[in-house]
Amino acid sequence: MASRPFAGVLVPVLTPFNRVGDPDAGRFVAFCRRLLDQGADGLAIFGTTSEANSLAAGERMELLDRLVAAGIPPAKLMPGTGACSITESAALARHAVAHGVGGVLMLPPFYYKGMDDDGLFAFFAAVIERVASPALKIFLYHIPPQTVLGLSVDLVGRLIRDYPDTVVGLKDSSGDWNNTAALLDRYPGFAVFPGSEVFLLDGLRKGAAGCITATGNVNVSGIRKVCENWQMPEADALQAQITLVRKTIQAYPMVPALKRIVAHFRNDPEWAAVRPPMVPLPQAQSQALLGDLATIGFALGEPRRAAAE
Amino acid sequence: MASRPFAGVLVPVLTPFNRVGDPDAGRFVAFCRRLLDQGADGLAIFGTTSEANSLAAGERMELLDRLVAAGIPPAKLMPGTGACSITESAALARHAVAHGVGGVLMLPPFYYKGMDDDGLFAFFAAVIERVASPALKIFLYHIPPQTVLGLSVDLVGRLIRDYPDTVVGLKDSSGDWNNTAALLDRYPGFAVFPGSEVFLLDGLRKGAAGCITATGNVNVSGIRKVCENWQMPEADALQAQITLVRKTIQAYPMVPALKRIVAHFRNDPEWAAVRPPMVPLPQAQSQALLGDLATIGFALGEPRRAAAE
Repeated sequence: MASRPFAGVLVPVLTPFNRVGDPDAGRFVAFCRRLLDQGADGLAIFGTTSEANSLAAGERMELLDRLVAAGIPPAKLMPGTGACSITESAALARHAVAHGVGGVLMLPPFYYKGMDDDGLFAFFAAVIERVASPALKIFLYHIPPQTVLGLSVDLVGRLIRDYPDTVVGLKDSSGDWNNTAALLDRYPGFAVFPGSEVFLLDGLRKGAAGCITATGNVNVSGIRKVCENWQMPEADALQAQITLVRKTIQAYPMVPALKRIVAHFRNDPEWAAVRPPMVPLPQAQSQALLGDLATIGFALGEPRRAAAE
Repeated sequence: MASRPFAGVLVPVLTPFNRVGDPDAGRFVAFCRRLLDQGADGLAIFGTTSEANSLAAGERMELLDRLVAAGIPPAKLMPGTGACSITESAALARHAVAHGVGGVLMLPPFYYKGMDDDGLFAFFAAVIERVASPALKIFLYHIPPQTVLGLSVDLVGRLIRDYPDTVVGLKDSSGDWNNTAALLDRYPGFAVFPGSEVFLLDGLRKGAAGCITATGNVNVSGIRKVCENWQMPEADALQAQITLVRKTIQAYPMVPALKRIVAHFRNDPEWAAVRPPMVPLPQAQSQALLGDLATIGFALGEPRRAAAE
């Protein structure tokens, strides 16, 4: 089993868009820097929350180039390199590895449904062999609500067995604690990250590496407190706080809601823009969301240390 | 309502792969030429059956370049240009339009689930506006078994209304005759193609433009007979024959089965290769399939006219 390049709170960073609907690298760099300043342990850029699947491969590569050029430490980055084709997935992974990223988050090919484990195994194996680099560290991305095609616990085991230095972790966005628990039981040392902080404390108590969670975009400091204090008496109370924030936000469509929150607290209305097929949160819902957050006393965290921006 | 660039039997052409798993342009060109010689009215290259979603955008573009360079008439081509991002979908469509294709087959963005009609409309609108060409003729691709996200009858109507010269048809691979019938009833003149020849005769009697069907890869001549004779007394008997062939083949995984049939009748074992996440048909199933086809008296059609190969 390989070493753990990541642990703690990882944020699948929102991708800002400009007025004409293209990714806004300037806002993106500034936001990534702020998340690190707030205490994020890693940035899982180009995940589901990042609308990465609404970006072409070239757009993802350019944003990564810009981040690294701006001085964001590549070791803190876990870019999503998933794509439906071996060729595109390998190209994205190769580009990321060349930048020295800490790891990549890799979806299964998600167009064809009902593919069996042999086919999925062959897909990951082909990507690994095309990238052909010991620096490649893959975190599998299990997110059946979007892919409608999961990575079975057995398939994960086959990949770990055949590629122990490459397949080093998994983000479990199934929302199914039993699946997360089964992975933790079966593969000790394998870096499992629940895809929601709702499972963070239970996960840490069972050996999870941390969590990779959408709401990290607006609540790094709260989630971090659970990571730092999970063995302390106050752990359950801290967990209850972050669960409350999560549940308040996820009553709304997650990505438009998070972008609306960022737009509000940064006083930057353009931040609310999403790319189709997503739609922005309507005004009435935006007001309701901000009201709900005020009711629970939520305010966007300040940087843990002085921002380098 | 726009004119109809396509009618009759369209084939979502299988994509052959070589020994190292890359698309084999030589075999592809030869196979496309043969399908036209056998009487295919159009080639819906880069569809689901083509494993197009296992190809990177650049691979699709290169194969199209090769087809056109080899003299396949672009007006006969309806390449699939669907992708999850506006940017990639527009890039593929722009490339296809520059080649003078008859039309493009366009998936909705298929990663994010539960997107509403407003978001899907905005996606198609953005692609159309980015391509910005009166030569763009879009056939919408409704295939909920893979996308798990359909194009509602109302959404299709909105797109026709706002882009009457661009959104000219639809492939309905829902497998739901009621949906096909509703589209034909609501939008007369709109070119609806059932995604299976099982619905061909019923479709033609109700105004469908033809069909776009996987099994066209091996049964153009049989399917064509239904198109040519649908108003004749023998129409139902001809339909029964092609339905029997279809049902025999679709008892197996469709794409690996079709490739196995082509490999067998062309005496070219490499043709059976698929790209992961698909897996080739196992030997025992291959034998069973070929046996089933022999039982119903099926043989791969000969060219209607002398092959130009």
